[in-house]
Amino acid sequence: MLNNIPKELSPELVKCLMEMGHGDEILIADGNYPAMTNSQRVIRADGIGVPTLLEDILQLMPLDPYSDYQAILMETVEGDPRPTIWDTYKEDLDKAYPGYNIKTIERQNFYKYSRDCFAIIQSGETALYGNLILKKGVVVPK
Amino acid sequence: MLNNIPKELSPELVKCLMEMGHGDEILIADGNYPAMTNSQRVIRADGIGVPTLLEDILQLMPLDPYSDYQAILMETVEGDPRPTIWDTYKEDLDKAYPGYNIKTIERQNFYKYSRDCFAIIQSGETALYGNLILKKGVVVPK
Amino acid sequence: MLNNIPKELSPELVKCLMEMGHGDEILIADGNYPAMTNSQRVIRADGIGVPTLLEDILQLMPLDPYSDYQAILMETVEGDPRPTIWDTYKEDLDKAYPGYNIKTIERQNFYKYSRDCFAIIQSGETALYGNLILKKGVVVPK
Amino acid sequence: MLNNIPKELSPELVKCLMEMGHGDEILIADGNYPAMTNSQRVIRADGIGVPTLLEDILQLMPLDPYSDYQAILMETVEGDPRPTIWDTYKEDLDKAYPGYNIKTIERQNFYKYSRDCFAIIQSGETALYGNLILKKGVVVPK
Amino acid sequence: MLNNIPKELSPELVKCLMEMGHGDEILIADGNYPAMTNSQRVIRADGIGVPTLLEDILQLMPLDPYSDYQAILMETVEGDPRPTIWDTYKEDLDKAYPGYNIKTIERQNFYKYSRDCFAIIQSGETALYGNLILKKGVVVPK
Amino acid sequence: MLNNIPKELSPELVKCLMEMGHGDEILIADGNYPAMTNSQRVIRADGIGVPTLLEDILQLMPLDPYSDYQAILMETVEGDPRPTIWDTYKEDLDKAYPGYNIKTIERQNFYKYSRDCFAIIQSGETALYGNLILKKGVVVPK
Amino acid sequence: MLNNIPKELSPELVKCLMEMGHGDEILIADGNYPAMTNSQRVIRADGIGVPTLLEDILQLMPLDPYSDYQAILMETVEGDPRPTIWDTYKEDLDKAYPGYNIKTIERQNFYKYSRDCFAIIQSGETALYGNLILKKGVVVPK
Amino acid sequence: MLNNIPKELSPELVKCLMEMGHGDEILIADGNYPAMTNSQRVIRADGIGVPTLLEDILQLMPLDPYSDYQAILMETVEGDPRPTIWDTYKEDLDKAYPGYNIKTIERQNFYKYSRDCFAIIQSGETALYGNLILKKGVVVPK
Amino acid sequence: MLNNIPKELSPELVKCLMEMGHGDEILIADGNYPAMTNSQRVIRADGIGVPTLLEDILQLMPLDPYSDYQAILMETVEGDPRPTIWDTYKEDLDKAYPGYNIKTIERQNFYKYSRDCFAIIQSGETALYGNLILKKGVVVPK
Amino acid sequence: MLNNIPKELSPELVKCLMEMGHGDEILIADGNYPAMTNSQRVIRADGIGVPTLLEDILQLMPLDPYSDYQAILMETVEGDPRPTIWDTYKEDLDKAYPGYNIKTIERQNFYKYSRDCFAIIQSGETALYGNLILKKGVVVPK
Repeated sequence: MLNNIPKELSPELVKCLMEMGHGDEILIADGNYPAMTNSQRVIRADGIGVPTLLEDILQLMPLDPYSDYQAILMETVEGDPRPTIWDTYKEDLDKAYPGYNIKTIERQNFYKYSRDCFAIIQSGETALYGNLILKKGVVVPK
Repeated sequence: MLNNIPKELSPELVKCLMEMGHGDEILIADGNYPAMTNSQRVIRADGIGVPTLLEDILQLMPLDPYSDYQAILMETVEGDPRPTIWDTYKEDLDKAYPGYNIKTIERQNFYKYSRDCFAIIQSGETALYGNLILKKGVVVPK
Repeated sequence: MLNNIPKELSPELVKCLMEMGHGDEILIADGNYPAMTNSQRVIRADGIGVPTLLEDILQLMPLDPYSDYQAILMETVEGDPRPTIWDTYKEDLDKAYPGYNIKTIERQNFYKYSRDCFAIIQSGETALYGNLILKKGVVVPK
Repeated sequence: MLNNIPKELSPELVKCLMEMGHGDEILIADGNYPAMTNSQRVIRADGIGVPTLLEDILQLMPLDPYSDYQAILMETVEGDPRPTIWDTYKEDLDKAYPGYNIKTIERQNFYKYSRDCFAIIQSGETALYGNLILKKGVVVPK
Repeated sequence: MLNNIPKELSPELVKCLMEMGHGDEILIADGNYPAMTNSQRVIRADGIGVPTLLEDILQLMPLDPYSDYQAILMETVEGDPRPTIWDTYKEDLDKAYPGYNIKTIERQNFYKYSRDCFAIIQSGETALYGNLILKKGVVVPK
Repeated sequence: MLNNIPKELSPELVKCLMEMGHGDEILIADGNYPAMTNSQRVIRADGIGVPTLLEDILQLMPLDPYSDYQAILMETVEGDPRPTIWDTYKEDLDKAYPGYNIKTIERQNFYKYSRDCFAIIQSGETALYGNLILKKGVVVPK
Repeated sequence: MLNNIPKELSPELVKCLMEMGHGDEILIADGNYPAMTNSQRVIRADGIGVPTLLEDILQLMPLDPYSDYQAILMETVEGDPRPTIWDTYKEDLDKAYPGYNIKTIERQNFYKYSRDCFAIIQSGETALYGNLILKKGVVVPK
Repeated sequence: MLNNIPKELSPELVKCLMEMGHGDEILIADGNYPAMTNSQRVIRADGIGVPTLLEDILQLMPLDPYSDYQAILMETVEGDPRPTIWDTYKEDLDKAYPGYNIKTIERQNFYKYSRDCFAIIQSGETALYGNLILKKGVVVPK
Repeated sequence: MLNNIPKELSPELVKCLMEMGHGDEILIADGNYPAMTNSQRVIRADGIGVPTLLEDILQLMPLDPYSDYQAILMETVEGDPRPTIWDTYKEDLDKAYPGYNIKTIERQNFYKYSRDCFAIIQSGETALYGNLILKKGVVVPK
Repeated sequence: MLNNIPKELSPELVKCLMEMGHGDEILIADGNYPAMTNSQRVIRADGIGVPTLLEDILQLMPLDPYSDYQAILMETVEGDPRPTIWDTYKEDLDKAYPGYNIKTIERQNFYKYSRDCFAIIQSGETALYGNLILKKGVVVPK
């Protein structure tokens, strides 16, 4: 643990976030996501929910304002209600990036898309449609 | 994740618990414990408290009834109050092992002692004196 | 060994089952299956039959109810009798997933198909047509 | 699997038995033995009992007739009855090495002694006092 | 060394033969064969001839009776006499598999074909056209 | 790079600082220090001076207030003037830990002492007597 | 550190420059460049700017006079002013290679192009459009 | 060092030459050749010229008499004089293989061609057009 | 295979012999020697006898004339006849080193002594008392 | 190869020299030195003599003026003449460090002493008593 770094983030995860560059994307996946099938760099965060990780990561990692989207969600299947966990995500994103934009991708395509992510965090999230991709922006050191 | 296995336990941790034998001991350490200095097998559980891990592990791992002790705590320094987190531990242990026995070891000796543990779990626990060693008993498959 | 985990499952196999996600498939292959030719993740279970492994795995791993099939068998060649070992499989599956559905795939295609499995378990099964693929469902922790 | 090699023996175990030389010893340990604590070469045989492994290994590996003992058991604690599994061991050994000799070692010393074994097989044996050390003899190829 | 396992077979080679499954093929190559160029699993047997290895392997590994061929040789170039070493092969095969069938493949295609072999044994054979591919059958444990 | 993490710190170094526990010590060594001879975990920071690294690290890592000392310097040889770079260190430490205490250790002993450090950072510092050991304190997450 | 080798260059970087051959190209990337996504050989130089690295590398590595270009920059997006850091680059290059030629490549293509670079140096540069590719020439030892 | 093996050949290089088979080719490249870009097996011979390596290798490795060529050179660009180092090569080859044949390949194609070589030796040769590919023949042990 | 290198010597063994220096010793062990227990560098030569290996090695490796002994044998136990295989060894040594000297070491001490050998070759020798240690001399390249 | 770095030095050797710190020692050993027995970091320089390596290294690495000695030679055995190669060493050292001091160590102790060297370079030197240890000084970047 260190000051200024949220305690739920493992050393391996912080190292990963630091190694990402402008435009690289990371998937915070739920506990049932087929992570190892879709990435060679899987970072486990068993028992931690996506909202916690999202809030933690937004403290350290800027999103990309130059892109058409700052985050990506998995499209709900027709008939499924809008996932309530999305409201939590939106609150966090609103605080960090007013005016942010979220894209959705159809489920099978989302799996394929995640193969190009820099890494996948396998969280302990159990809510449906909890997967969230973030696009890293430029870090401007003070 | 799997049925019957608490979701906070990582695949690596469950594998470790399975590989332990009768009499082997594991330390559930707090987030500030010098784990890597004292073990070559450190399993991280960032953001998870010791009580959660204790409750989870007791669901899977029997303690050793033939030993003089089933668990070990770090002795408090004179003047320090009895840590309230110990009450939580005792409740959990009481449920699982009525009549269990806890040993304490003085701080510097506790560090040395932990070098012989099978593994150290680096939890996210922030309470003082939260470190807890468990001694594995014999598993009797049904 | 641990409580609640069947004793025939090795630590490596349980770790593998935990790392699988929703929709990932695992092949429980017989002792003569060309496992290493078709997978980079082969887990050995010498001397253990497929029915034992099936029963064990169903205790821990849910199958996928949203899929058209929950399991896959290798199609028998014309003229070959229906393998009696399939009855054992069906009993186990019936208990765990009433209304389950099994798909069959022609032999050469089955080999190719197995290349995309998350892992192959090389059991000690000697019965013909004993290979069985299972599709993992969503784990809902209590 | 291969002809002439018992099917419960894994490729890794057969390789290990082949690499052992005259006088090297191997421990067939029960499922609760602290194997990884006492050896850097642990070979798993989950779900397989010691008698099966003993019978299998005696088909391939000669014991050492020049030594004072061919096998070692863990001494029972005073008051414990003679383990019935030992009778099975003795039958197998009798068939293979009429006039063989078994040594016993006190429990704590047995653990220490096993640190010098060539390897430890972690079987699925659940009987008490089931651990058995075998001393390899000279192989005389035909 | 072990009883029942021919002494020219290395532990690594026996492990390899055990890991092969039904239909997998292994090439026993001569000492000049470009083995490493055509396989990522090369097992050396310097100083040992192909006939010795063939005789040894046939003691352990069944060939595949369901296939159109049980073995493959490299086609001789027009004008080259029939290699006398083939007679030795045929005697050994005759003893083990009366009615066996041998296929030949043209030299450049043989090289390419060998890329799909499970492994290549680099023997010390110096006879021309000494390369021999064997197709593993089903092992039926007694 | 990430927000809140000084840009001179490499991902590997931040990971290392996070893995350190209460009481672990890290040496920020100058560019001529025999680092690899004295540690198996050397983290390079070529071209960066010790004052920069000190200031950066103090932003993330608390020092240990319960210890007799928070930092250690290499004792100057008799006759050598007091190194001016120490003034920079003291300013930084003063800001972060008013009332801190610095120990000095004689040169040959300093080398030996550094063998027990958690890690050694090989900086690009060229000033004499620039080596500085820091003792990590307890992190109290907000 | 060594004489004649600029102190900001790490041992790993110098080894890399030595291993490059005639025509190989290396990218000195800024701190926000997605380096790990585009190369399997990333060398970190946290906290060091591109101009420093450029000046250092030009002391050791000749550029290729036989090529149409000696260096490559990332094309500015329409409307963006000419980056002032380029003037620094040009001064350095002018001193080392009067008459040198610089090519520019459009941003998305630059990313793709960098995948074929021998290595990517991840510097700490924060200026926009700071990425610079150098093409190594023939070394003529004295 | 060993008797009968020229002292400039490293243990790794001799091992490599022994592992090559009939028809495999090895490139003895000059010191500026982009070796690592074109091969995953680069063997360094810093400070040793190609003529020395050629003479050494011809003592151990036969060339392939059945091929249309025994060696390959990089074609000179129009206008460039015939490299004098080629005369040295031809003398050595003449002694070892009277009637040998040398092929030349255009520069860019030579780079691509070398990607299929068994290995590349990175010598210290500084002469232009010094690269030489040798094709291994059949070794006939006495 | 290569010219001038006996064909029974594997690439790994020749590399090993080349890496040995003046005074280093190598054990050519029989097939029953506990090689892996006594060395971390075991080179297998299954199916090859010690006399063949001895003759081969003496073609490449000089023995040490400055030492009191050039070779070491395992002392026979009282009552055992003088091993006839020793005569073969002596003939080979006589040819290579007229006036050579052989030391013998008692069996248990021989095992311990072999722990300091540079490497152990595990041959396929089945004769009793066949183990032979050779001491490498200085190579004087022509 | 690079400008300012002598061409006989391999990338690995330069990296090693850069990683050495003040007071670390490196042995330039002759071709018969038992290097691997005495060091875990052996860098080969087959075919290169010690004088060449000495001259090259002195261009890059300062010796330690604060030590009683800057270099160490192996003491000649009584009766042996003073090795002429030492004159070459002394000339080179004279140029680089007028007033330098050389220590000698008796042969058996020299071997033991070399175990603490940072690395051993195995050169191709064939002269007797050619081994030379250098002690690195402080590098003062310009």
